[in-house]
Amino acid sequence: MTVNMALPSSVKIVEVGARDGLQNEKTLIDATDKIELIEQLADAGVSYVESGSFVSPKWVPQMATSTDVFNGIKRKDGVTYAALTPNLKGFEAAVAAGCDEVAIFGAASESFSQKNINCSIEESLARFAPVVTAAKAKGIAVRGYVSCVVGCPYEGDIAPEQVAKVAKTLLDMGCYEISLGDTIGVGTVKSVTEMLTEVLQQVPVDKLAVHFHDTYGQALTNIYAALNMGVSVVDSAVSGLGGCPYAKGASGNVATEDVVYMLNGLGIEHGIDLDKLLQAGWFISDKLGKAPTSKVSNAYRAKAT
Amino acid sequence: MTVNMALPSSVKIVEVGARDGLQNEKTLIDATDKIELIEQLADAGVSYVESGSFVSPKWVPQMATSTDVFNGIKRKDGVTYAALTPNLKGFEAAVAAGCDEVAIFGAASESFSQKNINCSIEESLARFAPVVTAAKAKGIAVRGYVSCVVGCPYEGDIAPEQVAKVAKTLLDMGCYEISLGDTIGVGTVKSVTEMLTEVLQQVPVDKLAVHFHDTYGQALTNIYAALNMGVSVVDSAVSGLGGCPYAKGASGNVATEDVVYMLNGLGIEHGIDLDKLLQAGWFISDKLGKAPTSKVSNAYRAKAT
Repeated sequence: MTVNMALPSSVKIVEVGARDGLQNEKTLIDATDKIELIEQLADAGVSYVESGSFVSPKWVPQMATSTDVFNGIKRKDGVTYAALTPNLKGFEAAVAAGCDEVAIFGAASESFSQKNINCSIEESLARFAPVVTAAKAKGIAVRGYVSCVVGCPYEGDIAPEQVAKVAKTLLDMGCYEISLGDTIGVGTVKSVTEMLTEVLQQVPVDKLAVHFHDTYGQALTNIYAALNMGVSVVDSAVSGLGGCPYAKGASGNVATEDVVYMLNGLGIEHGIDLDKLLQAGWFISDKLGKAPTSKVSNAYRAKAT
Repeated sequence: MTVNMALPSSVKIVEVGARDGLQNEKTLIDATDKIELIEQLADAGVSYVESGSFVSPKWVPQMATSTDVFNGIKRKDGVTYAALTPNLKGFEAAVAAGCDEVAIFGAASESFSQKNINCSIEESLARFAPVVTAAKAKGIAVRGYVSCVVGCPYEGDIAPEQVAKVAKTLLDMGCYEISLGDTIGVGTVKSVTEMLTEVLQQVPVDKLAVHFHDTYGQALTNIYAALNMGVSVVDSAVSGLGGCPYAKGASGNVATEDVVYMLNGLGIEHGIDLDKLLQAGWFISDKLGKAPTSKVSNAYRAKAT
């Protein structure tokens, strides 16, 4: 019996370290260092780099320099530099700064939506409609995030049907890809598989990405299970940047290095040079003054010293 | 499509933290604290606790107190307290100390065997024959470890056929179970699956255990793949104790907490109380003066504070 019958032959990595990762790091990184990180990631072969977020600096201080970052990046052909844009104002700023793609987001949990953005899921999605319309008018692609796809810090388990509904709404609004986020990293293979099974009733597999946090160490296994179900886009953060706002001190996004190591072992194409990726991770970890939370990164560094 | 067609309904955890874990920790833990750890693990529901090693204290200083440890443990019914015994002298000492079971070991890598114990694999296995004979005479069960089952720090990839050969030899010698160790944690699902496929030609699945180190963060995914192939015995170390002698500073055994969290998510029985297990892990981590390498452990501690 084999366990990897349906594995994809290639996987696209969506590198979210410079945005989702850094925004959950306390140490402020200046624009110059963010630009250096983003350029190192692109140089390592990452084809999609989420590079900033156009939100109020009051809410997310780490993202206050996003315009400077986008203006400063030396662009590499074939690389998409994307930004999170919660509203039309943010979208206009992102476009003015030269961002290639934008992302919008909705929660699969009603309580999470209420507590975080003070409105229902439905209202939050309606607020994004003008962003999608404006993006379409400018020919800019929009990616959709769904958060809390298996669990919520306020209400616990989330019904897979609820995730499927939000994912379908984002797809119907015009998002070309839906990234399913286990925001608090509580999922295991069973809950993730059940959630994906339901979402796949509404959204084709080639429109899906998985975005798993490694709070409970399950992310890589869950990614492996998702790959077995045909998913071929994986969000991850170099060096395992970030953390969990609901468990201070816990780990954040799954580390890109660990995903790449697994893909290498599985013989799945991804286009990333692990050595250069490791360098990028050490660069930003040193700037943050902390060790990477990537085991691959730490093992290679340990071997090198 | 489901990815967990062949998952076992229950899994036995072989807790190796007090031996394989601690012997790779620099900070010496005294017998009293080891006894406390072992008793806490048994109280948490762990049914098999590797509790010491009867080797020369010159080679493994951390294990010098193994006799005191075995003498001091307040035994719990239904729990097996085992020891590693490399030779007849060690075996006699282990039995005198009241150990329930013993373990012997062989490498799947010729260079590893030569560099570590200065003899060939064949010679090393022959040296264990008197231990197995003596154990049989006393009605004591013998477990067999195979190290370097997917990779070796000296020669790289290991042929699955070589692993199968060593595993079969240990089985034929009289070991009731063969624990397959990815000693340096380099395996990914593909190499682990290929190795297991070959071993299963020689050894029935109910005689196999997997013993994975998490050096490159792949252990849990590899365990998941092994479970899918019918393996139902998993070696792990509370708190992710230990390290990798070939990459100083890298992580050690897969953490029992992370395995238990995954099993809980999969609905697989294991008999362990996660809360009590977490307490045991925090107890020994505090004694070592370091944070657990278990993400589950750190996430629960972060949430609690």
